[in-house]
Amino acid sequence: MFFQVIDILGTIAFAISGALVAMNKRMDPFGVLIIAFVTAVGGGTLRDVMIGIEPVSWMRNMTFVYVIISSAFFAVLFRKRINYLRKSLFLFDTIGISLYTVVGIETGLIAGLHPLICIAMGTMTACFGGVLRDILCNEIPVIFRKEIYATACILGGITYFLLLQFFEDRNILFVIVGLVVMTVRLIAVRYKISLPTLYKKDEGIL
Amino acid sequence: MFFQVIDILGTIAFAISGALVAMNKRMDPFGVLIIAFVTAVGGGTLRDVMIGIEPVSWMRNMTFVYVIISSAFFAVLFRKRINYLRKSLFLFDTIGISLYTVVGIETGLIAGLHPLICIAMGTMTACFGGVLRDILCNEIPVIFRKEIYATACILGGITYFLLLQFFEDRNILFVIVGLVVMTVRLIAVRYKISLPTLYKKDEGIL
Amino acid sequence: MFFQVIDILGTIAFAISGALVAMNKRMDPFGVLIIAFVTAVGGGTLRDVMIGIEPVSWMRNMTFVYVIISSAFFAVLFRKRINYLRKSLFLFDTIGISLYTVVGIETGLIAGLHPLICIAMGTMTACFGGVLRDILCNEIPVIFRKEIYATACILGGITYFLLLQFFEDRNILFVIVGLVVMTVRLIAVRYKISLPTLYKKDEGIL
Repeated sequence: MFFQVIDILGTIAFAISGALVAMNKRMDPFGVLIIAFVTAVGGGTLRDVMIGIEPVSWMRNMTFVYVIISSAFFAVLFRKRINYLRKSLFLFDTIGISLYTVVGIETGLIAGLHPLICIAMGTMTACFGGVLRDILCNEIPVIFRKEIYATACILGGITYFLLLQFFEDRNILFVIVGLVVMTVRLIAVRYKISLPTLYKKDEGIL
Repeated sequence: MFFQVIDILGTIAFAISGALVAMNKRMDPFGVLIIAFVTAVGGGTLRDVMIGIEPVSWMRNMTFVYVIISSAFFAVLFRKRINYLRKSLFLFDTIGISLYTVVGIETGLIAGLHPLICIAMGTMTACFGGVLRDILCNEIPVIFRKEIYATACILGGITYFLLLQFFEDRNILFVIVGLVVMTVRLIAVRYKISLPTLYKKDEGIL
Repeated sequence: MFFQVIDILGTIAFAISGALVAMNKRMDPFGVLIIAFVTAVGGGTLRDVMIGIEPVSWMRNMTFVYVIISSAFFAVLFRKRINYLRKSLFLFDTIGISLYTVVGIETGLIAGLHPLICIAMGTMTACFGGVLRDILCNEIPVIFRKEIYATACILGGITYFLLLQFFEDRNILFVIVGLVVMTVRLIAVRYKISLPTLYKKDEGIL
């Protein structure tokens, strides 16, 4: 119950973030809906398809479909006033990636995958909705360029496997991992920490 | 038989539309062939992969492979004179999305998915070949921005489920749904109706 | 053993090529790692997902994961001096696509697919990592525009099926196909041969 509420809050934040980017690109209502959808379920869809869980998760859980459609609708209606929600949305988003990371790791474990692959699946679940959103909007994905975002998920994943042996009760471990992801992200945003960009002038090697 | 002829006409229209966009981007023959292919089978491929029908449909039906290769070849050879075919191609394309919508809905139903998901699958089958084409050509997908295209498919899908209870014979229902999609699209193009674009200035919320 | 060494050399070349493109786009370390990964395993992942081999290959073989991470790390560390490796990298890349082509054809055959589809799978395995890399970096894929690259893979695939009846021992056939792909690519690069670009002015047909 508790987890489901969090999951829905995360989905709302992702869907609204997608809708906002789409409106910023002057898309029509259909485009806005699709981008909201892809942002919210894209990461999990890629994960499911690559692991072989099909039909993919969101097709079997209508709650998320309704939540996403409502969120997109809400974002369109209140697009002029959504700035007042800036802080709430950032919080939802941060909660969302924390939970999505844990869900992705879990899915990988159930499929019997190697810990490193599980961490990759957690990060993909949390981050690749945003990557797909940026590709559809014809941008270089923002998380490849300037934010501690995926890094928070990766650190959460590493924490998971470091602590795995000490916890009988997975639920407590999940909460800890979620808190690690959130803390890293919040600190990075608060103190404007980002990874350095690497640069290599194009000399046409390959 | 009747349906298969329509399916092939749709595939021809999609493949030629892809080849034209690729040539407009100054691609080489290989690029033109790939874009023609992706435009024609991309929507169905995404649908199959997400539902779990693998190997995906076009790998098991060589007719479509031959039709697409021939269409791309034709588009390249007659690229200077293809304007004379403008109206036929538009008609094929409109017939194509009507049929693809129905095929997508059917596929969803057979997989036991919820009606809303089936409508999404129908729309995806009809429209996402064009979306993938635009991504590969580094454009924001045109259907997100300015055309009643997906909307026609969605209205067709809604019609399907509204009328489902009244028809014993699925074939008649399919024809009706196809006609709805075609009519909406033709009216929209004839009277230059499009969805309004939504706009939200970027204030960097998330 | 011999094949595995070649496979790893190819993976190294692909991962480094991805990392270099990502650095050229001023990505951060996370972005560089992801692009290296996608370039190295993207083609095989698409192939596996479309055929239905899941979890996809690289999730079940940690060797490649370690090779890719190390290659990306290496590319970042030595990015200023990597020009000295220009020729080795080009060679690895050429060896890589030769082997990936053969691996893709094999995978298609095992899945019982039509020879044409197998050739497509071979070409996809070899080339679509680079296509995905370019999409993530917001470029029109380079192989659609100016290089004999995919063409070499296609010619290798055709050779495979032309000679299939004459060889009891598949291994010899693989080596021959690999040599065809390499030879075509090396000759094309040496004599700067490329496919002509086709051009069709946009008159907004569809």
